[in-house]
Amino acid sequence: MQIDSMSTWQRTHSCGGLRASNLGEEVTLMGWVNSRRDLGQLIFIDLRDREGITQIVFDPQTDSESHAKAHVLRNEWVLAVRGEVVKRLEGQENGQIPTGDIEIRVLELRILNLTDTPPFQVDGAVDASETLRLKHRYLELRRPQMFATFEKRHRVAAFIRAFLNRKGFLDVETPFLTKSTPEGARDYLVPSRVNRGSFYALPQSPQLFKQLLMVAGFERYYQIVRCFRDEDLRADRQPEFTQVDLEMSFATEETVMAIFEDLMIDLFRDVQGVEIPAPIRRMDYREAMEVYGTDRPDLRFGMEIRNLTEQVCDTEFRVFRDTAADGGVVKAIRVPGGAAAFSRKNLDELGSLAVAWGAKGLAWAKITPDGWQSPLDKFLKLEEKGAINASMGAEPGDLILCVAHERRIANEVLGRLRSHVARERSLIPPDRYAFLWVTRFPLFEFDEAEGRLAAVHHPFTSPLEEDQALLETDPLAVRARAYDLVLNGSELGGGSVRIHRLDLQQQIFKLLGINPEQARTKFGFLLEALRYGAPPHAGMAIGFDRLVALMTGAQSLREVIAFPKTTSASCLLTEAPSEVDPRQLRELGLFLVDSQDVDH
Amino acid sequence: MQIDSMSTWQRTHSCGGLRASNLGEEVTLMGWVNSRRDLGQLIFIDLRDREGITQIVFDPQTDSESHAKAHVLRNEWVLAVRGEVVKRLEGQENGQIPTGDIEIRVLELRILNLTDTPPFQVDGAVDASETLRLKHRYLELRRPQMFATFEKRHRVAAFIRAFLNRKGFLDVETPFLTKSTPEGARDYLVPSRVNRGSFYALPQSPQLFKQLLMVAGFERYYQIVRCFRDEDLRADRQPEFTQVDLEMSFATEETVMAIFEDLMIDLFRDVQGVEIPAPIRRMDYREAMEVYGTDRPDLRFGMEIRNLTEQVCDTEFRVFRDTAADGGVVKAIRVPGGAAAFSRKNLDELGSLAVAWGAKGLAWAKITPDGWQSPLDKFLKLEEKGAINASMGAEPGDLILCVAHERRIANEVLGRLRSHVARERSLIPPDRYAFLWVTRFPLFEFDEAEGRLAAVHHPFTSPLEEDQALLETDPLAVRARAYDLVLNGSELGGGSVRIHRLDLQQQIFKLLGINPEQARTKFGFLLEALRYGAPPHAGMAIGFDRLVALMTGAQSLREVIAFPKTTSASCLLTEAPSEVDPRQLRELGLFLVDSQDVDH
Repeated sequence: MQIDSMSTWQRTHSCGGLRASNLGEEVTLMGWVNSRRDLGQLIFIDLRDREGITQIVFDPQTDSESHAKAHVLRNEWVLAVRGEVVKRLEGQENGQIPTGDIEIRVLELRILNLTDTPPFQVDGAVDASETLRLKHRYLELRRPQMFATFEKRHRVAAFIRAFLNRKGFLDVETPFLTKSTPEGARDYLVPSRVNRGSFYALPQSPQLFKQLLMVAGFERYYQIVRCFRDEDLRADRQPEFTQVDLEMSFATEETVMAIFEDLMIDLFRDVQGVEIPAPIRRMDYREAMEVYGTDRPDLRFGMEIRNLTEQVCDTEFRVFRDTAADGGVVKAIRVPGGAAAFSRKNLDELGSLAVAWGAKGLAWAKITPDGWQSPLDKFLKLEEKGAINASMGAEPGDLILCVAHERRIANEVLGRLRSHVARERSLIPPDRYAFLWVTRFPLFEFDEAEGRLAAVHHPFTSPLEEDQALLETDPLAVRARAYDLVLNGSELGGGSVRIHRLDLQQQIFKLLGINPEQARTKFGFLLEALRYGAPPHAGMAIGFDRLVALMTGAQSLREVIAFPKTTSASCLLTEAPSEVDPRQLRELGLFLVDSQDVDH
Repeated sequence: MQIDSMSTWQRTHSCGGLRASNLGEEVTLMGWVNSRRDLGQLIFIDLRDREGITQIVFDPQTDSESHAKAHVLRNEWVLAVRGEVVKRLEGQENGQIPTGDIEIRVLELRILNLTDTPPFQVDGAVDASETLRLKHRYLELRRPQMFATFEKRHRVAAFIRAFLNRKGFLDVETPFLTKSTPEGARDYLVPSRVNRGSFYALPQSPQLFKQLLMVAGFERYYQIVRCFRDEDLRADRQPEFTQVDLEMSFATEETVMAIFEDLMIDLFRDVQGVEIPAPIRRMDYREAMEVYGTDRPDLRFGMEIRNLTEQVCDTEFRVFRDTAADGGVVKAIRVPGGAAAFSRKNLDELGSLAVAWGAKGLAWAKITPDGWQSPLDKFLKLEEKGAINASMGAEPGDLILCVAHERRIANEVLGRLRSHVARERSLIPPDRYAFLWVTRFPLFEFDEAEGRLAAVHHPFTSPLEEDQALLETDPLAVRARAYDLVLNGSELGGGSVRIHRLDLQQQIFKLLGINPEQARTKFGFLLEALRYGAPPHAGMAIGFDRLVALMTGAQSLREVIAFPKTTSASCLLTEAPSEVDPRQLRELGLFLVDSQDVDH
């Protein structure tokens, strides 16, 4: 088959733009064959480009040459057609597509490229494995819903930039080849050839650079920027990801939260067509953990966790009594209408899940008009059950799920049960966007493995001013000036007021067990910068891929990244990572260790 | 000295915003002490933030406490002041700054941070070495002219995005952890921990991914994106740099050039306040080389190279005669008014330069009202000199500089002389922006070292359709559908129509000596993609750092990059690259070779 040159032809219209008002015009369209019907005398093609589909008619009466060529066309061939916009025959209109009233009667056809039989159908009628789709990602990306995803991603980015530009934030690019600071996740390293034996690291975030920009007096910085983490990837992580990163001087948590709150409300109104009620609710970390068993509660549904310890500490049920006596808690969630929905088998499965998540067991009670139906029934007095019902707000037909354990585990197990049950029972309303600020996280947690304090966020986070006195006496009680933005149970991102005083930063490093020498090696340039007039500053970053996924209803981050990597951090399309020429390694002064030698 | 908390104070105004119309208002400003005059009774501070400077007055009559604190203030301390906007005393106004009519009478002072004595003065009155300034980059960035540079960089990026968004281009992010394709410059490699022994490469450009996006039917893509090249850095290169990258389907060189031409004209009008005359001039590569001796001519000044071979091939001057007879050329430039400006010593220096650049010598002639003053005078007949004068358009007072050599070297030496003389003699008008398209580059050049053809641009560049027949017979004569955009003698960037046909791409790889196996290993995914309906497409990329440098008058790219690297690819601020924990290398399965062992 001869491939034609496009030569000097130019598209006059997209495949989505022609209407009855264009009747009689001579137009030139270019695109891909989406489908084809050969009626012998007449040949119909649906021509597709990113804007839509237009029906093309080859009629030997109009142009015998193009009609002759059109017999061999196949799906996904690339065409250019010159023709006249005509009205479709009465009754042949297609109300499904905006161009459905017209068709193009072809005057001239050029075949711009051919296609081998694609490994899977672009129209997605029969789907292929994700492996095959990622290997031929360019074919999957041809699907209109994929293009719609990236068009929305583009609009979200453009909206965020325009918003922040208006607010006086400067887009400043920070380095990608930077210093390894092994705190938090693993860095990707980049060997230096010029400085042999030395390595750059790819940034996990521009944290230190944006703080330096504040010391530099830039006052308002932002970037939509790629970041890198060499983690053992869980189901839905990517080794490179994009974040909306922002920092402000002379700002408190209120300033930063107000900016992001306005941004999210405006973004959802303009791009998503959804009105987010202001203000976004706020919740202390402690409340989130007690009532939702997680620091990223999904507020699209209820089933809050209630504390029943007081109500059950004196019952005859030994597990409750002993747990309470040992300083533990008895807590529960109520599943509305759960009594009928959960069979004995279902409840056993929930119980196994609870045990897998750390509980010793799961107690349950179905509330019926005649009282409780529950293995605990016999252990509890009528007034005890009444007190529980009252605490839980239980009505006949409800199900109560109850865990007795130390506080942390009871909360966590019930939090997971809450989400699990909501998903399983479809209690989550679609198209709802429940935003939440979680604030006042603990500044430190105890790292059992290292036997020392670790920063919950990062070591540059400011403690609450009112808690500063506790730094020396009870550091684990110190709360951070940190805030996370949660959407539908996913952490969109977070931020904090940073430490801008050298003495406080040094005190925090000391508490984290980072000695002055280590601090100098890892963060010397930050400490140095803090000597020269650092202003108070605060900032935030949110996951851009995650945000787009939530706005497009994507099931996985891979759907919203043009060329994603698999969970084993490889690109099936390019086959990266790959072996390299030994000469390249020699130039870097590197040897590959035989994999046999290093596995232990 | 006690540092105060900012607490709940909020800035009401910037240090650049207050005017006489604000008299009587109570305001809160925050910023850095730019300078300080202590008159004992009254203390004056110039408070600086990114928007400007405001004069602050501490008067014990107004608030004795803040006046007492103000005695110890030093430059670059960080302050918050609450006070009243008052009129400056008659005669004390400062016409140099927009806030010069008013000052702030302080009601309350908070000292937000102190400063060690800075290693150099922020106001730049006495300047430090570049090394010291890069090490404390955050201090250098505090200089108002530096902030102005990054503010302009921000506006240029925002303008380009808005322009391309309007034209239907989608901002699509391409991967940073990608496949090493050792063609062109050296890749930076990133060892994979999960796939031990394998490496990612950081992209030198998103070339292949943007082509894949065209195969995916995205039609119009752009990105302002970081790219990486591990080169031995010349004076003004950076290992990581930013480019404006763009690709279009169903486009020819005309489509792409029109987009960039509109973009540049609009950008310079809106952001630079300069009207670029349309259309931007175009020049064939061949003409650029013949007339300017370079593929990036600076059109801000004349001194075009003229060919005198015909006029001198029969003269008695043997060098000219022999060069012409051997197939070489005699070419020259005319320096207007150069006769008086260049002493014998200057001319000797120019001659040495010419020889250093490859010439055998430099012939010169000063045109006087009485004829030539030149070492060649005696060898040339009067009518020969007259013919030369006529060819060169020489007038009394001019200087002619002449090189006889093979064509390539004569052009190159005269091109360099042309630039050198223009710079030395200040013949380049300031604030002039001369854009130029250079087109129809050769597709191939001969790589002497490898003994094979190499791509002048990259191996995905389309040949001119009219030259395709020459691919097999005379590949070095084949011209590319490539175009470079030149501004003031700097290459801003370039692009090409790409190859979209598998058969042609395979033919080009073969001509480049890339065998099918190598092609599969390096570019297999591109070849595979070309099987499935690649549309005709073309694109371009321009250097964003270079563009900003030209628009800000920066002397070096380092001035327009927030955290630049030195010519030895290190960051003096963070000390990257640096040594890493041996544990990190073990995890990657890498050994450092002792540097002794590998230098040979």
